[in-house]
Amino acid sequence: MTVINELILHEDRFFGPDAKQKEVAQQLYDAIAGLPLICPHGHVDPTLFSDPDYAFGSPVDLLLIPDHYIFRMLYAQGVRLEDLGILRWDGQPVETDHRQAWQLFADHYHLFRGTPTGIWLDHEFYDVFGVRQKLNSDTAQDIYDQIAAKLRTPEMSPRRMFEQFNIEVLCTTDAATDTLDHHRAIRASGWAATIRPTFRPDSVVNLDFPGWRANIDRLSEVSGITVDGYPAFITALENRRAYFKDMGATATDHAALTPYTEKLSEAEASQIFERALRGDVSAEDAQRFTGHMLIEMARMSIEDGLVMQLHPGSLRNHNPVIFAGFGADKGADIPLATEYTRNLQPLLNAFGHDPRLTLVLFTLDETTYARELAPLAGHYPALLLGPPWWFHDSLNGMARFFDQVMETAGLYNTAGFNDDTRAFPSIQARHDVWRRASANWLAGLVLRRMVDMADAAEMANELAYGLAKRAYKL
Amino acid sequence: MTVINELILHEDRFFGPDAKQKEVAQQLYDAIAGLPLICPHGHVDPTLFSDPDYAFGSPVDLLLIPDHYIFRMLYAQGVRLEDLGILRWDGQPVETDHRQAWQLFADHYHLFRGTPTGIWLDHEFYDVFGVRQKLNSDTAQDIYDQIAAKLRTPEMSPRRMFEQFNIEVLCTTDAATDTLDHHRAIRASGWAATIRPTFRPDSVVNLDFPGWRANIDRLSEVSGITVDGYPAFITALENRRAYFKDMGATATDHAALTPYTEKLSEAEASQIFERALRGDVSAEDAQRFTGHMLIEMARMSIEDGLVMQLHPGSLRNHNPVIFAGFGADKGADIPLATEYTRNLQPLLNAFGHDPRLTLVLFTLDETTYARELAPLAGHYPALLLGPPWWFHDSLNGMARFFDQVMETAGLYNTAGFNDDTRAFPSIQARHDVWRRASANWLAGLVLRRMVDMADAAEMANELAYGLAKRAYKL
Amino acid sequence: MTVINELILHEDRFFGPDAKQKEVAQQLYDAIAGLPLICPHGHVDPTLFSDPDYAFGSPVDLLLIPDHYIFRMLYAQGVRLEDLGILRWDGQPVETDHRQAWQLFADHYHLFRGTPTGIWLDHEFYDVFGVRQKLNSDTAQDIYDQIAAKLRTPEMSPRRMFEQFNIEVLCTTDAATDTLDHHRAIRASGWAATIRPTFRPDSVVNLDFPGWRANIDRLSEVSGITVDGYPAFITALENRRAYFKDMGATATDHAALTPYTEKLSEAEASQIFERALRGDVSAEDAQRFTGHMLIEMARMSIEDGLVMQLHPGSLRNHNPVIFAGFGADKGADIPLATEYTRNLQPLLNAFGHDPRLTLVLFTLDETTYARELAPLAGHYPALLLGPPWWFHDSLNGMARFFDQVMETAGLYNTAGFNDDTRAFPSIQARHDVWRRASANWLAGLVLRRMVDMADAAEMANELAYGLAKRAYKL
Repeated sequence: MTVINELILHEDRFFGPDAKQKEVAQQLYDAIAGLPLICPHGHVDPTLFSDPDYAFGSPVDLLLIPDHYIFRMLYAQGVRLEDLGILRWDGQPVETDHRQAWQLFADHYHLFRGTPTGIWLDHEFYDVFGVRQKLNSDTAQDIYDQIAAKLRTPEMSPRRMFEQFNIEVLCTTDAATDTLDHHRAIRASGWAATIRPTFRPDSVVNLDFPGWRANIDRLSEVSGITVDGYPAFITALENRRAYFKDMGATATDHAALTPYTEKLSEAEASQIFERALRGDVSAEDAQRFTGHMLIEMARMSIEDGLVMQLHPGSLRNHNPVIFAGFGADKGADIPLATEYTRNLQPLLNAFGHDPRLTLVLFTLDETTYARELAPLAGHYPALLLGPPWWFHDSLNGMARFFDQVMETAGLYNTAGFNDDTRAFPSIQARHDVWRRASANWLAGLVLRRMVDMADAAEMANELAYGLAKRAYKL
Repeated sequence: MTVINELILHEDRFFGPDAKQKEVAQQLYDAIAGLPLICPHGHVDPTLFSDPDYAFGSPVDLLLIPDHYIFRMLYAQGVRLEDLGILRWDGQPVETDHRQAWQLFADHYHLFRGTPTGIWLDHEFYDVFGVRQKLNSDTAQDIYDQIAAKLRTPEMSPRRMFEQFNIEVLCTTDAATDTLDHHRAIRASGWAATIRPTFRPDSVVNLDFPGWRANIDRLSEVSGITVDGYPAFITALENRRAYFKDMGATATDHAALTPYTEKLSEAEASQIFERALRGDVSAEDAQRFTGHMLIEMARMSIEDGLVMQLHPGSLRNHNPVIFAGFGADKGADIPLATEYTRNLQPLLNAFGHDPRLTLVLFTLDETTYARELAPLAGHYPALLLGPPWWFHDSLNGMARFFDQVMETAGLYNTAGFNDDTRAFPSIQARHDVWRRASANWLAGLVLRRMVDMADAAEMANELAYGLAKRAYKL
Repeated sequence: MTVINELILHEDRFFGPDAKQKEVAQQLYDAIAGLPLICPHGHVDPTLFSDPDYAFGSPVDLLLIPDHYIFRMLYAQGVRLEDLGILRWDGQPVETDHRQAWQLFADHYHLFRGTPTGIWLDHEFYDVFGVRQKLNSDTAQDIYDQIAAKLRTPEMSPRRMFEQFNIEVLCTTDAATDTLDHHRAIRASGWAATIRPTFRPDSVVNLDFPGWRANIDRLSEVSGITVDGYPAFITALENRRAYFKDMGATATDHAALTPYTEKLSEAEASQIFERALRGDVSAEDAQRFTGHMLIEMARMSIEDGLVMQLHPGSLRNHNPVIFAGFGADKGADIPLATEYTRNLQPLLNAFGHDPRLTLVLFTLDETTYARELAPLAGHYPALLLGPPWWFHDSLNGMARFFDQVMETAGLYNTAGFNDDTRAFPSIQARHDVWRRASANWLAGLVLRRMVDMADAAEMANELAYGLAKRAYKL
């Protein structure tokens, strides 16, 4: 009888199940496992690195409270977020005993069986925190103690972990109005790590963004340009892009409900912008203006060389009870069916043929992989496809991406991996899943004689390292 | 050379193809194969059980005539339904020689190669009827004789089969206006089996349902409440729900063209309902009223504890030639692309955060698994996802469900299996396919080291038994 | 250590990866590998065969310039089409040194790793041209010499290749206004091969087709019927169908942006057609008229027995820069989400129940396989599903087709394979991929005990030969 029962990080995990596929995948993986991590897109807080003495707090502070991938799953089974210690906006009381919150988490840890979150957590527990038990109701407090003790050791500072993770470059995501003080502090500290900001203008470009008017004032302030109309708005954005680029940025990032694009005339854009300044903007205005600004951003990217990223298709804050109590980014964002072929056509007609533009597309609607995104990326010089995103950053999500994208787009029209995470201790685990999934996919190609080992080895290297580095000009 | 050529029910069927995966799957399956069947949703006629002496008729009466999964496939290849013995509404003649109809079926049995219907039939022939030959033109009459002879034996009464199938509970589906006389008779008979009704109000809630006006009169009659307006309608529905609950129901079931929901004001709902009573209702009225009533049904579920099920997305009676000749449920219902994220938002905003509600969602549009349903079920406490439905109740359909749902929703936000069948002799075969598909999926996770055997064994038990039992409060 | 590193056409390529699956697949494949090729749909130029002395030109003339599957991939990586020798409409200069163009192609040949285009090219290089090296920058000129030398040998004439490929029948695609002179010449030449035309009326039926008005004049000319109104238009089309049928055609082929169908009254159809003759036609007119004509074509098919094919869902000429410079069919056509259930209902309500009609459906939107197309084909006698098309004519595309279509539609409601290619030397490679993918799919069914070897062998034969031959009445 096969005995497969230990809770350890098996050397051949995620490969197979065919034994020969495991063997070939292992060989391909071993050659890339030690490559430095390229992290071109994510949401790690730069504060972790600007303060050399930054400490992570309790295991719950570090692992539970900031990670909506985790607490959404407990909420879905009837656990109150308050009982996990998640702070409420309105100041109503929440659990402050982190041992209690941790126990509640451990009592429900079976919910994560077979999920990517479970895989990352098991990796972190074992590899980052040295835990050798399975987390459950019985082991909860013991594991809490182990993690808490580990967090008090010097090697658990963010800077030491960054080095141990072998991160070559980490890009954060920063509002267009951010002054990047923490990035400035990191540079000034003389620490040799490469941490770059990314220019994210949603809060000033999307007219229906919460607090848009105040964000425009803030934009005026940080740019030194009084944004009293559309021309000044464009100038202020160009100013901020230049500042970000000066601070090391190589990319911009854009969220939108849909990938709709439309080139407005200068007059139309101005009129909509002025209506927005007066607080008189319709949903249609907002959609058209966002669609217009995506084209404007592509134009600016051609001029300043910043790589453009577009992440559409998430209906944010689907659950008003959670939004009212806890705010945004609390696991209540739900994907929508998304259309790229017609929506992106105006932008691509303007700039898609220009190799100076790099536009990295993401999706939450996997039906677009084979139908729209792979054919688009397999044609337009400006397009690359980003890796499986968010809910699809998982073993099956990656397998579907490889199977549905690669034959039509070709490997070299994709942009490698990014971890897209705010959970810093999970970064190595996430890249490891990608590298293993890549090796396993390639092993399948080798065994089916579609590529030979020499080609597969090069492809593995590209997936783990080269594609992301080149796509983001890092 | 591998020899794989016998027509028997192989012990390792549906596992693999990898040999080690077969081995682990077999181990997981063996531990759940004998668990009682939980049948929380289906369309078995309770008449089978209310009459202790019920007899099934000929092999064609039992297997062919009631099963549109079967005769649609012959019709698609040019076989006339009349020639299979399917009755016409208009009384025009159909084949009455069941040996002839059976021969025609057997002549076309190759059409079912590799289909779930073929798998179920092979299982029934072998296991229920003891047939050891392959069905084809040559063996047709011999097998007809064997089945006919078997049907004359005492162990082939529905009640004996129910016991032999080891059914712990069987839920039927019953119109809101049904008086549940057969259920009453089953209870009165002293037979120990658990058979529960399910409250299905489509025929009075969907204003465009054929015969809606007469159904309302019938609702008045059975409830004793004169449904002369919207308030009385609501009261009558609450009355019927209470009656069904009293008769053992734990759930309601709702079909709709789309999962559109909208909360109408009392005044709007009343106006639409009164227009419908006057026979003056538009398609838009009907859609909005159904959408409103789904929210009302969720409210009632919170109050009375009945589990709510929603099955949207089937365009019924696509082929008017078949509908005119043979009526509804004749294999001519075709799925539509379906949207859940926006459509369900009004209902979920009202009640999705309330753990007292259980809403089990089904789909005929698999693109919604990873994109909408898994993220929704992985967030809202009220939501569970039902198993692959109808066309997707198949080995590949289950594999896609496991691969596309589980990573994001998590196993524990799903509702186990239901057979959804009117073909009573196929029930064991259908559950067996699910249990084998579950074991095979879990074996893949084990071999890729995503869960250990202890966890996999628990998950297998949940899939086969626990999830459905808890989801439906059985 | 497994050594898998030679560039040869492995005998077991595309099977597995499981070793037992390879073994069973090989057995199934070996029995069908030598069957003649049925090529019921494609775009090979009949000129290749009408002139017994036709010569292919340089390797670039033969392989690169006509094949948008290839050059789109280089364009997507920033290679200018001009530099590959692709002619411009406006006569601006392009590379005329084919050795240079070939070198550029070879320098980028890694782009085709893991793509179907790469698989076909590797097969052609090895099997058709006898090349034993891997194509790359270093081997480019040597391989160019080998192919060029081979092209000068007598066995490389199109007629000899046709015979060596063991093609039983090849159908071309021809405009409704084509006089089929080349087909006439092939017949007149006494060469024994079977080459049939296919009637494709898009250029006169789709009112928004470029040059529609001139095409109508051409239709008048070739039919001898003055198309001055809708009745004459219908008569002229019937005339041309009769001519094509007389010349050996067994099928028609129809492209449309969507599968929208609508039965117009004679008066409405006439009014729209007359507006079109006057050059005054709206987009809505064009869509409705195409939808109406699809129903008309189905009616004619019932009358004349020609098999009808429908290929919807491609948004042609997405990139205006490429269209302006190089024209249509240059790799810039992008799929759209497509809806069949509602769109085809008018046509199917009129004729779907009639077994005299054969309507073969294709799609570029794989989400419709399990949701719409398989249920439709598994019901309507008139419907068959064509093989994976265009971007989905690939190993994964075929695997998805088998997995998502067959359980619900059943094998016998599908239409076998067609290569749909203008790249004549790739025909054998394309059929070989399909036959191997079929054998591999069936081996999986055998190992999972869903069909036995006898059934699998019959199914393999149908997939490779029988289904296409019967579907297209060849």
